[in-house]
Amino acid sequence: MSDVIYQDYFSRQKNTNIRLTLPVVCFVWQIAMIILFGVFIRYDEESDTHWVETKAHDNITSDIENDFYFRYPSFQDVHVMIFVGFGFLMTFLKRYSFGAVGFNFLIASFGLQWALLMQGWFHSLDPQTGKIFIGVESLINADFCVAGCLIAYGAVLGKVSPVQLLVMTLFGVTLFAVEEYIILNLLHARDAGGSMVIHTFGGYYGLAISRVLYRPNLHQSKRMQGSVYHSDTFAMIGTLFLWMFWPSFNSAITDHGDGQHRAVINTYLCLASTVLTTVAISSLSQKTGKLDMVHIQNSTLAGGVALGTAAEFMISPYGALIVGFFCGIISTMGYIFISPFLEKTLKIQDTCGIHNLHAMPGVIGGIVGAITAAAASESVYGKQGLINTFDFTGDFKDRTVLTQGGYQAAGMCVSIVFGVVGGAIVGSILKLPIWGDPADENCFDDEVYWEVREPATHHLLFTI
Amino acid sequence: MSDVIYQDYFSRQKNTNIRLTLPVVCFVWQIAMIILFGVFIRYDEESDTHWVETKAHDNITSDIENDFYFRYPSFQDVHVMIFVGFGFLMTFLKRYSFGAVGFNFLIASFGLQWALLMQGWFHSLDPQTGKIFIGVESLINADFCVAGCLIAYGAVLGKVSPVQLLVMTLFGVTLFAVEEYIILNLLHARDAGGSMVIHTFGGYYGLAISRVLYRPNLHQSKRMQGSVYHSDTFAMIGTLFLWMFWPSFNSAITDHGDGQHRAVINTYLCLASTVLTTVAISSLSQKTGKLDMVHIQNSTLAGGVALGTAAEFMISPYGALIVGFFCGIISTMGYIFISPFLEKTLKIQDTCGIHNLHAMPGVIGGIVGAITAAAASESVYGKQGLINTFDFTGDFKDRTVLTQGGYQAAGMCVSIVFGVVGGAIVGSILKLPIWGDPADENCFDDEVYWEVREPATHHLLFTI
Amino acid sequence: MSDVIYQDYFSRQKNTNIRLTLPVVCFVWQIAMIILFGVFIRYDEESDTHWVETKAHDNITSDIENDFYFRYPSFQDVHVMIFVGFGFLMTFLKRYSFGAVGFNFLIASFGLQWALLMQGWFHSLDPQTGKIFIGVESLINADFCVAGCLIAYGAVLGKVSPVQLLVMTLFGVTLFAVEEYIILNLLHARDAGGSMVIHTFGGYYGLAISRVLYRPNLHQSKRMQGSVYHSDTFAMIGTLFLWMFWPSFNSAITDHGDGQHRAVINTYLCLASTVLTTVAISSLSQKTGKLDMVHIQNSTLAGGVALGTAAEFMISPYGALIVGFFCGIISTMGYIFISPFLEKTLKIQDTCGIHNLHAMPGVIGGIVGAITAAAASESVYGKQGLINTFDFTGDFKDRTVLTQGGYQAAGMCVSIVFGVVGGAIVGSILKLPIWGDPADENCFDDEVYWEVREPATHHLLFTI
Repeated sequence: MSDVIYQDYFSRQKNTNIRLTLPVVCFVWQIAMIILFGVFIRYDEESDTHWVETKAHDNITSDIENDFYFRYPSFQDVHVMIFVGFGFLMTFLKRYSFGAVGFNFLIASFGLQWALLMQGWFHSLDPQTGKIFIGVESLINADFCVAGCLIAYGAVLGKVSPVQLLVMTLFGVTLFAVEEYIILNLLHARDAGGSMVIHTFGGYYGLAISRVLYRPNLHQSKRMQGSVYHSDTFAMIGTLFLWMFWPSFNSAITDHGDGQHRAVINTYLCLASTVLTTVAISSLSQKTGKLDMVHIQNSTLAGGVALGTAAEFMISPYGALIVGFFCGIISTMGYIFISPFLEKTLKIQDTCGIHNLHAMPGVIGGIVGAITAAAASESVYGKQGLINTFDFTGDFKDRTVLTQGGYQAAGMCVSIVFGVVGGAIVGSILKLPIWGDPADENCFDDEVYWEVREPATHHLLFTI
Repeated sequence: MSDVIYQDYFSRQKNTNIRLTLPVVCFVWQIAMIILFGVFIRYDEESDTHWVETKAHDNITSDIENDFYFRYPSFQDVHVMIFVGFGFLMTFLKRYSFGAVGFNFLIASFGLQWALLMQGWFHSLDPQTGKIFIGVESLINADFCVAGCLIAYGAVLGKVSPVQLLVMTLFGVTLFAVEEYIILNLLHARDAGGSMVIHTFGGYYGLAISRVLYRPNLHQSKRMQGSVYHSDTFAMIGTLFLWMFWPSFNSAITDHGDGQHRAVINTYLCLASTVLTTVAISSLSQKTGKLDMVHIQNSTLAGGVALGTAAEFMISPYGALIVGFFCGIISTMGYIFISPFLEKTLKIQDTCGIHNLHAMPGVIGGIVGAITAAAASESVYGKQGLINTFDFTGDFKDRTVLTQGGYQAAGMCVSIVFGVVGGAIVGSILKLPIWGDPADENCFDDEVYWEVREPATHHLLFTI
Repeated sequence: MSDVIYQDYFSRQKNTNIRLTLPVVCFVWQIAMIILFGVFIRYDEESDTHWVETKAHDNITSDIENDFYFRYPSFQDVHVMIFVGFGFLMTFLKRYSFGAVGFNFLIASFGLQWALLMQGWFHSLDPQTGKIFIGVESLINADFCVAGCLIAYGAVLGKVSPVQLLVMTLFGVTLFAVEEYIILNLLHARDAGGSMVIHTFGGYYGLAISRVLYRPNLHQSKRMQGSVYHSDTFAMIGTLFLWMFWPSFNSAITDHGDGQHRAVINTYLCLASTVLTTVAISSLSQKTGKLDMVHIQNSTLAGGVALGTAAEFMISPYGALIVGFFCGIISTMGYIFISPFLEKTLKIQDTCGIHNLHAMPGVIGGIVGAITAAAASESVYGKQGLINTFDFTGDFKDRTVLTQGGYQAAGMCVSIVFGVVGGAIVGSILKLPIWGDPADENCFDDEVYWEVREPATHHLLFTI
């Protein structure tokens, strides 16, 4: 009986009018950001006008030894991945390009502000002044944190309102900062490109939310699912910018010098290898060997995800190729076999297939990282190289590589747990019928949240 | 009577054949550039093969202390903004993408050559040799100068011929170099990201030209105004590349070290804040809270414009957020309320709404800069930091921050005057019936100046 | 009689099923790469964890003096040119965007791996260890090598299968490494941006292959040739990213400091000049002065090709403008006059017009390079500058600039010979009827090798 009422309560006529909620959320949260930034956020010593004194004090002879020059080019590449990469990757749906690019833009812009605060409180709150000092590395980390939420967006693309996305991002960033603190600081795991912290967490967070928001009647908007020719071409813009700049992603916050250099080489090679096996499996999956754009758009990126942890290690060039080799295979097979299974059996509707692009390759990345760490040796890394790479200093100076491997694996588990449990809770919040989500027959349609000027005739032409 | 003749003279059958004028202008001007470059332009000491001697002489120990390594990544980002950013932002019209991207490409390519000469004569002509020595910073400044003209193009998009655009660029660059000299050198105002010098000048220059070229019968090409689904998606490529790389724009020529670092942080934050308030106002403006792509494409960028002067100052992170907060609101309201008013009452037809994206936020940026400068204090900046930031050296070593604030405000006025008066004069020149501009019923249509292969049937389908 | 059988053998019903060949080639070659990388490829000293020891040993004081920081921003720009630049430039065909972007992606990903090996064996095999040590400069060179094959792809776009493309790339990279070794090492010619090594070789390689694969009945797929409105806009993404980042291409591997700085300035100027003359000639070629997108998309880039050799020399800013001036003219005239001639008379079907964009400007670049080198003088370059620029050290310390000019010209010839002869041989291999190439009436159509979801009605609408 109560079940019927519950059922009824949730399936009443959907109201997608967000004229009140969206502006209120945007204004209130932005004002909160301003207040919190006023209280907590300050320039760090390398971006403050006092740097001239810091330089003199620290005997820094040249302006170029400012962290800005080590990391800014990578930062901009990461920034492009977040806004153009993720945004355009999701434009593949025939009639959801505005939502893909536009909502991605909105939630990333909010998320990076909230991330600077959350990550600041957990990682770099100065105990004496009570302030968070930010520089270019903070901006990169904020973009990374946002990436986790954008991954989750991929699972619910077309099925939620922008208000729900903002809520999802608020909680996503919060959970991210906590799991990141546990994994990187407490467990002292290494995860420069975020296989665990970003991709695994973001993947399972999104999948769990999508599970809770399961729509049994989603087939009612089947006409809007799938792509058209030009939308697939737009999506390739996203794919390529992600693919090309992934070496910057995995090296953006690694150690200066050889650390960044090596992470770039590894990621570059791994991704190249992934493309070939993705094409191979995609071709095998069709009767006449035709390729499927879904695979090319997504699975080609799996190698970058899977090297997120190990990119800075001495995995060696052929090791990077091997990781890419298997990721291309596994991710493409995920699209062919696992996605239908997830939808039918586990009731997880995963619009962009983030399970195959982020969750699964993220887990592989965590495992590769743990194994590579455990197998590290002084003969390969050098005495000082080993210390530098795994940061075996301070409290962790006596840690062995085997122990490190164990902690890496533990970090993996933490990110899965945070993703699944966090996503389940946040999904329940998003199920409340106050957020303006679309009806089952209006999913994947920009007309719900956007003024679309083009006449419907043209539109029909594309879809009939 | 004479009025009738005048009227008649200008409304005679339009001739859009530019087969003579366009090639002649391109050839003659390009040859002039070659001659003038031959006479005046040389490599500066950091890009000349003699640098090996300069290094020895100046005791520079490493190749990396060449300005190239401080500025080249930012330069490339700015370059992308000029050609892809501005170009694609203007592709939103359903049938003017070739003109948007192609003419943008043409005038930027001419403008940057002319800018190197004009800016060189005014800013860096070596009195002894009579030569202009160029390096990477000159290239950035040339791109900046071109940006002013591309902004102006936005106001007249679809209503002028490429020959008119080239004329507009010739005069625009000339005026730019003069006002820039007055503002930066004579008044010694600071304007690293060009709120005044680039955006305010460019905005009013374009608006004044558009006013003079007012077309009372522009409604005759109403069928071509507005966007279609894919053209709006293309425009988002422009929006995002402008948005992402704006931190590079505002920091490209600021001081090495903390100056560039701080300008990036401020711009990054300001733009994030702008996105949220733009979305809020856009949603509020529609009955059901739907978002309007025009706002998302344009107003989200206003924060970058408005921080063009103050980005390098110690405006503090929350200060940057506040500027972005108000710019998103004001710019979006500009699209909703001011643009129709400008068109109806002041007879300014502003195709891209540059008033809301550049002119108005530029003025805000000038004011923010003046206030921030006037409020600067030694306690915040440090003694040496204050001198470095405002360049209180040489003739200006005794200037106070209050005086500086006054000069910043004066600079603001100079840019407006140059824009309005210059635009009015250039507009009159462009009114001469010799430039091949399109008839009122053929505006916003690529078929006037481009070979369009696609059959008209498809075209009609899109527009009916 | 035997001729008839031969004829018959080749014109039998085409089988485009690549379900066996494509996966097998991808898997086998990728596994071969893994094995060869395992045997040969190692991190170089700047990307190895032992760098901390190298630094101490070589007295390097700062992490920033790692080659990574000199070249990584340029590398990323080059990477964008390879994948987005070349990929999207070829999307201009109305119905071959997937093939353009997708196959470009595939062959570049394979090619860069094979290039690291081939270039490593020829240029940097360590005689003591038998290993190839790679760093960021190796990645740039691998991307360069791939560029040669992507150029060749432009000639056969739409007429070959992905398997043929992979074969073409395998041999292309191999030939490239050999001619590069002869030109750069044995002849000691300079060619930083690859006018000869990349563009001339790649151009003639592709043209020769296309000649061998001549299809007399290609007119049967005439309906698929040519562009539609949106495909031309997509192609401009490729054009602009190539154009904007070409300064990075020509400077990516030039000398640190003034070498990179100067190459950027020269390329930037040259390309600007090319745009104006391209527009001029394009407008002249039409009765009413309308512009042709084919010219704007391609010929505007010819200046970058033609400065590939001389960009690092003291060609002086006006010299760069002059090169661009003539290249815009010649390349555009190539599209108007030479391409039809090549097709009718020489039976070379050149889909993208690579003759006009790469082959011819490449030859011009080689000649410009030879002349500029021969005209170099100590008064312009400085004593040490001359030595640095032309690397007159070791075995070549007594070489004069005149001799250098001669060797540059010799290098030019080597690249042409390798392109033509190599292309002829590889073309013959590709003529074997086992590679799954499309029938004459199915060329330029994505439906042959891709799952295209869009209904044919829409498609027809675009093409009828």
